[in-house]
Amino acid sequence: MFTTPEEAEQAFYEAMRTADLGMMMRVWADEEVICVHPGGLRTVGHDALQSTWQQIFASGPIQVMPLQPMIITSVMSSVHVLIEQITVDTPQGRQTSLCYTTNVFHKSPSGWKMILHHASQAPQEAGLFDLQDRPDTLH
Amino acid sequence: MFTTPEEAEQAFYEAMRTADLGMMMRVWADEEVICVHPGGLRTVGHDALQSTWQQIFASGPIQVMPLQPMIITSVMSSVHVLIEQITVDTPQGRQTSLCYTTNVFHKSPSGWKMILHHASQAPQEAGLFDLQDRPDTLH
Repeated sequence: MFTTPEEAEQAFYEAMRTADLGMMMRVWADEEVICVHPGGLRTVGHDALQSTWQQIFASGPIQVMPLQPMIITSVMSSVHVLIEQITVDTPQGRQTSLCYTTNVFHKSPSGWKMILHHASQAPQEAGLFDLQDRPDTLH
Repeated sequence: MFTTPEEAEQAFYEAMRTADLGMMMRVWADEEVICVHPGGLRTVGHDALQSTWQQIFASGPIQVMPLQPMIITSVMSSVHVLIEQITVDTPQGRQTSLCYTTNVFHKSPSGWKMILHHASQAPQEAGLFDLQDRPDTLH
């Protein structure tokens, strides 16, 4: 049981790094859940989601690092937009790619649960900066 | 003032179709807002967001149609994952592309407001089906 959305998110990335399907599915809510992987089809529902993670984990653990989270909270809901840095070791050396990822968590009687994961390829300069309001600039 | 998240979303797409910056910015919350356009950088904050929409609208209206919404609601929050069908008329004819889009709305004293828009390119078969639990299948 996750007592904060951050705890649930930490378990989500730990499950990816260890290819632990059981841990992954404990992060997700039981009923209404939606997942969009980069380049993939929209996956809807707990069982369909379990199948797609099982396929992904069949290739082994994923070297993923969540970076630069921005968090917007509401009463029973927490919206996280972060950068996933994914590293793959290839015969040509280590390759790194970035995704923008939206994770949404809802509070339920059984703690905080993920209800949405939407990840998409980000430009390489995503790691360097956001387009952001500058509080020190006159408007 | 939007009394439902659906009303706010309708205004969002109407603003895109008419390149109406004023209407677009009335859809968004005043403070914490995040926007990710396909292939673009993460945009954070109301003023930065206004600049990016202004740039987009400088090229004129966008022929966009929201399709197949899936909605997960919480107390003061509504998460919509839909398909945007975007049509562009070119000298070579009409071209259509699809995006998966997550829109999140929060309820505020001034009605429902968009706090997140995350759109990313979707495969062409996205319009045909989701990977979905089949209630008529044995588990």
